[in-house]
Amino acid sequence: MPVRLRVFSLNCWGIRYLSKHCAQRYAMIGDHLSKEQHDVVLLQEVWSEGDFLFLKKKLGGTHPFSYYFKSGFFGSGLAVFSRHTIHDAFLYKYSLNGYPYMAHHGDWFGGKAVGKVLLKISGLMVHVFVTHLHAEYCREQDSYLPHRVVQAWELQNFIQHTCAGADVVILGGDLNMHPGDLGMRLLRSATGLQDCFTETGTFDGCEQGFTHVMDNPFTNKQGLIPLGGGIRIDYVFFKGSRKVDVRCESLSTTKGVVPPGQPFPYSDHEALSADLFLCPSEEGKGDSTQEKDNTAGKLSELVNIVTEARTEVKVGVHCAKRMRYTAARTVIMGLVLLILEIAIAAVPCLALGADQPFPKTTFYLLGALCFAVLLSTTLLYILYSMEVKALQETEDQMRLVVGSLHERLREFPKAVCKGHSQKKYDRQDPATLEPDQ
Amino acid sequence: MPVRLRVFSLNCWGIRYLSKHCAQRYAMIGDHLSKEQHDVVLLQEVWSEGDFLFLKKKLGGTHPFSYYFKSGFFGSGLAVFSRHTIHDAFLYKYSLNGYPYMAHHGDWFGGKAVGKVLLKISGLMVHVFVTHLHAEYCREQDSYLPHRVVQAWELQNFIQHTCAGADVVILGGDLNMHPGDLGMRLLRSATGLQDCFTETGTFDGCEQGFTHVMDNPFTNKQGLIPLGGGIRIDYVFFKGSRKVDVRCESLSTTKGVVPPGQPFPYSDHEALSADLFLCPSEEGKGDSTQEKDNTAGKLSELVNIVTEARTEVKVGVHCAKRMRYTAARTVIMGLVLLILEIAIAAVPCLALGADQPFPKTTFYLLGALCFAVLLSTTLLYILYSMEVKALQETEDQMRLVVGSLHERLREFPKAVCKGHSQKKYDRQDPATLEPDQ
Repeated sequence: MPVRLRVFSLNCWGIRYLSKHCAQRYAMIGDHLSKEQHDVVLLQEVWSEGDFLFLKKKLGGTHPFSYYFKSGFFGSGLAVFSRHTIHDAFLYKYSLNGYPYMAHHGDWFGGKAVGKVLLKISGLMVHVFVTHLHAEYCREQDSYLPHRVVQAWELQNFIQHTCAGADVVILGGDLNMHPGDLGMRLLRSATGLQDCFTETGTFDGCEQGFTHVMDNPFTNKQGLIPLGGGIRIDYVFFKGSRKVDVRCESLSTTKGVVPPGQPFPYSDHEALSADLFLCPSEEGKGDSTQEKDNTAGKLSELVNIVTEARTEVKVGVHCAKRMRYTAARTVIMGLVLLILEIAIAAVPCLALGADQPFPKTTFYLLGALCFAVLLSTTLLYILYSMEVKALQETEDQMRLVVGSLHERLREFPKAVCKGHSQKKYDRQDPATLEPDQ
Repeated sequence: MPVRLRVFSLNCWGIRYLSKHCAQRYAMIGDHLSKEQHDVVLLQEVWSEGDFLFLKKKLGGTHPFSYYFKSGFFGSGLAVFSRHTIHDAFLYKYSLNGYPYMAHHGDWFGGKAVGKVLLKISGLMVHVFVTHLHAEYCREQDSYLPHRVVQAWELQNFIQHTCAGADVVILGGDLNMHPGDLGMRLLRSATGLQDCFTETGTFDGCEQGFTHVMDNPFTNKQGLIPLGGGIRIDYVFFKGSRKVDVRCESLSTTKGVVPPGQPFPYSDHEALSADLFLCPSEEGKGDSTQEKDNTAGKLSELVNIVTEARTEVKVGVHCAKRMRYTAARTVIMGLVLLILEIAIAAVPCLALGADQPFPKTTFYLLGALCFAVLLSTTLLYILYSMEVKALQETEDQMRLVVGSLHERLREFPKAVCKGHSQKKYDRQDPATLEPDQ
């Protein structure tokens, strides 16, 4: 102590045979990482284990410790390389992550998750998280918004529940959310994590910290124009503890342009590189985010954000229930059609005319169609039922937390709650809130 | 402080329309719970939300706080009732839980998980876990063993990672494992949780603490005879902290026989009721399970257990890979058959004779068959691929932990490691171990 910690995060865009120049870009990423020697490297979209093993071999000298999180059909795409021993790893797969039939989007097959590794650096317990959330394909009509809100909720829940013993918390990854998005506000407000971009001493990178920019030759420029020519969706967050103060001294990003001497950029996303400075906090004066977060204002803000998120999840429940209902109706229709067909074939007088039997070809074709409809809609019914359950679970957790926050707010003296409508909480009868858990 | 905490756990066998006398038994369970007024009630197999709501209404006076965990198709079946405010809830769904095509076993549809609720009792943070693991249908040839080992691993991982700030930890539920089973040894050894049955001051219940007994009229007696007439698969565990000593003063179970004045028992499982005694531990002399667990002997034992579990998971990986291979082969066969059929239909000379065209009915029947084979085996291929990934992830985590434990063992002075073959760890070159993460 004090300790300097360099953290790197990059979405590698590593879909073999589909992403452009995949192999060459991995070689470039490997070269860059061995040269830069960051303490912790957090990668996303490393979809192929072969590519991870390639990097592992290449970084054997500089980053002897690594972990590749496996989940879903393709894997989670998450990988960590570290100069410090990785003592433990844990994976939390998000309960919702798109739909399997949206195969062209592919998120469902990726088994998106948040991975955690435990490092001990200079006697400090450093909890490092890496994640990748569901992509946003259309900002105006984002049908995946409830899923991403659920993921953001589970991410903050996972971090909060697993970090009680941490001296330092680091989270990096592609969150697929803009800084002001609901999920981002929820994550920051609930965990007290600090965004390197807003907290850094010095910054060198794209305008407004964008990590998906027009200058990048791999970018689909048409999609970015309505969004102002760039978006910030990749982040590095940090948090200290009573024991340790953490500061972000500098943050840099690649700038979309092709690096000198290279044929193309490392990825279609920009890479983040943060220099963190860890120093012992004075007893009692520590960077206790918990204390900071316990002000009435912060709690009240969190109540509002969780309530907003709950509304979004409720909309998701409504949509998922409607889809489940449609699937159920189609199952019944398929079943009725099948029974009708069998009846017509079995009882000739039901057919068009007694002298005109049910044509065999039509019978088999119709039968196959009914069977296909029945099977696929049954699977869809199961899928939507599971979606409803997962959304309802998140909504229940949110309701519980809002109730708990209201209780904590009631404990604050009225004077402290300037402008935060303490009366609202006073008026609420505890009996009506608490048993509703 | 000191505090007495009464904990209840029961697998309710609540499959509507399939479990015998379901509604009446819930009424009995509700009556029993309102009379006994346990502090914390942990229920499993509450498959219907309607039944949970029935209990919630019934227990409104005695247990005003409750939480029902939703997951999977039917739900997780897990419910908590509490006399103390529930401040937060979190759910971890196990990554493996049987197969959807084993619908008659039904585990996959249940979305089995471990649920956590946070209680604050007399200023103490009490972390309460409830879980239900995959059932064991055949002890001799248990094809679900790797899944249950993965679940036990994830359970201990979840508890360990989320309990750093806990003063008291309580785990209850139907673990579907006998006390000496691999998963149980793993759970106890890794978390330091103590089994109420072995630690209790007084015990009143079935012989050997059995919770699935011949005397219960709902029990399938044929299945229990080879297992010695009873098994213990339901548990209540506890753990203290530096701040709090926890003791189990008494444990009781129902005894299979019909309760006085009732027509049948509460369930096909026996209910557990544990009286825990929480008192402040003397500074430095606390029930610090962490310190107790850090002896070389304990670490060495844990290494052996995790290694054994890893072997079991490796067997699982092998089986899942074989199944995936079979599925892939069948997908290819289905595809070849479909192409061949289309070719025969399209090019008449390929058919049996030029004057004998491919019969239409046969064409459609074969086509439908090929399509069904293709669809189902593709789904199976995806399922087995996900199983392989989940098993491999667990194996990787286990390897990491074994490496980390070896490191900690090397730090012990040789004299301490009596009989635990310290030399074995000395001889091992760290370089060969660590980069293997």
